[in-house]
Amino acid sequence: MSWRDKLYEIIFEADTPEGKAFDITLLWAIVFSVLAVMLESVPHIQARYGNILKAIEWGFTVIFTVEYLARIIAVRYPGRYIFSFLGMIDLIALLPSYLSLFFLGSQYFLVIRTVRLLRIFRIFKLSRFLGEADTLSRALQASRHKIIVFLGVVLSIVMISGTLMYLVEGPENGFTSIPISIYWAIVTLTTVGYGDISPQTALGQTLASFIMIMGYGIIAVPTGIVTSELSRANARKASTQTCPTCLLQDHETDAIYCKHCGTML
Amino acid sequence: MSWRDKLYEIIFEADTPEGKAFDITLLWAIVFSVLAVMLESVPHIQARYGNILKAIEWGFTVIFTVEYLARIIAVRYPGRYIFSFLGMIDLIALLPSYLSLFFLGSQYFLVIRTVRLLRIFRIFKLSRFLGEADTLSRALQASRHKIIVFLGVVLSIVMISGTLMYLVEGPENGFTSIPISIYWAIVTLTTVGYGDISPQTALGQTLASFIMIMGYGIIAVPTGIVTSELSRANARKASTQTCPTCLLQDHETDAIYCKHCGTML
Amino acid sequence: MSWRDKLYEIIFEADTPEGKAFDITLLWAIVFSVLAVMLESVPHIQARYGNILKAIEWGFTVIFTVEYLARIIAVRYPGRYIFSFLGMIDLIALLPSYLSLFFLGSQYFLVIRTVRLLRIFRIFKLSRFLGEADTLSRALQASRHKIIVFLGVVLSIVMISGTLMYLVEGPENGFTSIPISIYWAIVTLTTVGYGDISPQTALGQTLASFIMIMGYGIIAVPTGIVTSELSRANARKASTQTCPTCLLQDHETDAIYCKHCGTML
Amino acid sequence: MSWRDKLYEIIFEADTPEGKAFDITLLWAIVFSVLAVMLESVPHIQARYGNILKAIEWGFTVIFTVEYLARIIAVRYPGRYIFSFLGMIDLIALLPSYLSLFFLGSQYFLVIRTVRLLRIFRIFKLSRFLGEADTLSRALQASRHKIIVFLGVVLSIVMISGTLMYLVEGPENGFTSIPISIYWAIVTLTTVGYGDISPQTALGQTLASFIMIMGYGIIAVPTGIVTSELSRANARKASTQTCPTCLLQDHETDAIYCKHCGTML
Repeated sequence: MSWRDKLYEIIFEADTPEGKAFDITLLWAIVFSVLAVMLESVPHIQARYGNILKAIEWGFTVIFTVEYLARIIAVRYPGRYIFSFLGMIDLIALLPSYLSLFFLGSQYFLVIRTVRLLRIFRIFKLSRFLGEADTLSRALQASRHKIIVFLGVVLSIVMISGTLMYLVEGPENGFTSIPISIYWAIVTLTTVGYGDISPQTALGQTLASFIMIMGYGIIAVPTGIVTSELSRANARKASTQTCPTCLLQDHETDAIYCKHCGTML
Repeated sequence: MSWRDKLYEIIFEADTPEGKAFDITLLWAIVFSVLAVMLESVPHIQARYGNILKAIEWGFTVIFTVEYLARIIAVRYPGRYIFSFLGMIDLIALLPSYLSLFFLGSQYFLVIRTVRLLRIFRIFKLSRFLGEADTLSRALQASRHKIIVFLGVVLSIVMISGTLMYLVEGPENGFTSIPISIYWAIVTLTTVGYGDISPQTALGQTLASFIMIMGYGIIAVPTGIVTSELSRANARKASTQTCPTCLLQDHETDAIYCKHCGTML
Repeated sequence: MSWRDKLYEIIFEADTPEGKAFDITLLWAIVFSVLAVMLESVPHIQARYGNILKAIEWGFTVIFTVEYLARIIAVRYPGRYIFSFLGMIDLIALLPSYLSLFFLGSQYFLVIRTVRLLRIFRIFKLSRFLGEADTLSRALQASRHKIIVFLGVVLSIVMISGTLMYLVEGPENGFTSIPISIYWAIVTLTTVGYGDISPQTALGQTLASFIMIMGYGIIAVPTGIVTSELSRANARKASTQTCPTCLLQDHETDAIYCKHCGTML
Repeated sequence: MSWRDKLYEIIFEADTPEGKAFDITLLWAIVFSVLAVMLESVPHIQARYGNILKAIEWGFTVIFTVEYLARIIAVRYPGRYIFSFLGMIDLIALLPSYLSLFFLGSQYFLVIRTVRLLRIFRIFKLSRFLGEADTLSRALQASRHKIIVFLGVVLSIVMISGTLMYLVEGPENGFTSIPISIYWAIVTLTTVGYGDISPQTALGQTLASFIMIMGYGIIAVPTGIVTSELSRANARKASTQTCPTCLLQDHETDAIYCKHCGTML
């Protein structure tokens, strides 16, 4: 095995001890560098430890740059990696630090570094949680259409009730425009309830009560959708049998004969 | 096929490419015209782009008027269409713009134009989401009685606890009347929690704590109702076949052989 | 049938047209009299329509008094009715109006009249929703122990995190005592979030974040409990078969043989 | 049976009447002593009943000290008990009262006494709720990996949307730093919604609306996970028998004959 293949195995895979160690180191490096960005945004920490944070930041930037170059060297077709989705994120996570050298004081560049957080998903991709994440995302995908219908109904309720509240309460009670009233309706229906805008008239409060009870009730719908999908997925997954004739794997737990070809399992 | 049948097919149906294109165009026209109404209600946008929005609005009004007339021409019995539910909405969505010519400055007319939003459901009616919406609405209908019982209990809890809080806290702490206290109880039980009214006395806070925990717990009930109905609907949709040998009914949709005794279905 | 039996049938049962009409009239009388109490508590309505509401109130009081006497006459053992739970509520719902003649100005008596609301359950008892309410309450009862365990855990979390927040934030940030801090923890964990008290220190906000995410997650537990009970109840109820040999009714939907005696169903 | 074995049985077990009585007495002693700590933290109660509460507190401290010593005497290997987890909690629950004699005025010591609350779990351990708690905790453990994946996704959403809001709203609207913005995102996503920080710009409110609807929707995921696990746990608990003829495993707990082929189980 050439040193390049070796490097590839360490950086891109996670089944060797070295590969695992690399992934875990990278995970913590990402977490700490994102934490540094966050702390840097707190005024009194910035004032006091600004220089230390800057040094830490540059340390991580150098580490990630070396890692990026190592990735380019390790892969067979560097172009493919550079222009892949994950490759782009790797680059975008690096650039802001360098750009901030030329465009001084631009806070936006600093913050964009939190894009690094997305790199964590690269590591998740290889982890033991993959199977679980897969079950969850397949259940969500199976209920995709139902969830879109649900969101459509929620958006309609929110737009209609927002408009009604605008008519009922009006600008003098904080419902200054229809978009603001719709924002209020979303805050209310989702049971967030900031209280920055709240109905003042008797009619408005009555209408708001209906919206709240509706919001309290219809949360049952997405929950029902996801639960019944997950239960079905669980029921499927629980079966570990494969049909010896047609190789179908998708059997229910209580199946004795293959549902497809009638062979005994 | 006469030009009228052709027109009918394009406007009222969605299985030809032209019909589909018509529906999608209409969908976007509705969305943009509703967006225009919403933006018009924002004071600083109204002040700046009022004339442009007015022009856009009249453009859409003309388009919808032409569409309305086309619908009347296309159907065999115009009277039936005009007085149907969807026909009435089509008309109500048009009228406010024309009426606002005669009754100047009436904001209410402008806002009623958002009724157009309801027209979106006409398009949904024909879409591929119909099946999913159907499953959902049938599950909700099957749990209708349970949900009414649940709402009855929630309303009783809310009225009793609202009255109690009125006695405990009284007008000096913002619970100025029983209806306001009931409004507060709804805000609390549904976990919205605006905070515009909140208990100040120790006894009131204790009572409020009970209401909150109750609200946090009983949300399980509608969720349970809808979930178990949806699971049943899913199961029912799956099983339309009965095994001729062992009489098992619990087959998956793609089953060819009975999973239990291997008989062909 | 004597006139007393006739009276009994009308007042206490609901299977004759007269009995049904009586129940529905009573239902509306209760609803309107409770509404009158509520409106009386609103200061500006009280100021304007106080006399009309007082007259309406006395009208209902007379009606309910007549009804109460009729109930006493109709039953075979009046003593039993008077001292039964429902009989006591019927009396308590009447007394405040009469007592308010002697103890002038006591608002408490007026409010206690809302106890009438509880009388609605008498009518529910006879209605077609009985079956559904029964399924729900049996599912809740079956999950009683699980729910108590859950509530115990929630109360412990709330007390421990309330105490911690009292230590972390202290009286200067609104967490003036441990009970107030526990009240805050309940407001937060149940996702109500009034915002009358909210953490100000970084450590307090971090701790609060944990409590919120915990609250957001553990709502899954009661929901899961109730849902799985309801699903089981549904599965049981769905079967309408009775075993011809042992008369067992509690079969699953896919049962072909009685699970108890092995007879074919 | 020696008096030490007798003492052991009373203190550590709960199957004799004396053991049960001891447990219940201890439970109430813990509850009242924790209540005393809580009341002591309320300034105006402390001012008025401070001395009585102090006396009660010392009474309980003496009782718990005697109990602690009795436990040490009763067990065969005192060292093992003292350094066990529950033994440590028993000690930590005692110490603060004694330490407060030497370090006067230290409020922290007083508050740490609420650690006693944890002792309640010692009693729960022996109670009839053990089975239910066990079912619940096993269902939660089975869904452990799914819940970690879910929490990971929630934390990522919260960090990314918090950072975005910091960029969009900025310090002038209360989003003073990224950690504060993430705190806001948690408050919003979990639908708590204090309202101490809320978006002011149109773009911020739009973004917040997305976060709210997301939070309202994804609560379905943990609920779905726990529900499907609980259903499975219920189903599994039910089926321990397999039919010798048709190999069906899906029997109810009270089944004597196979519901499918009528064979005795």
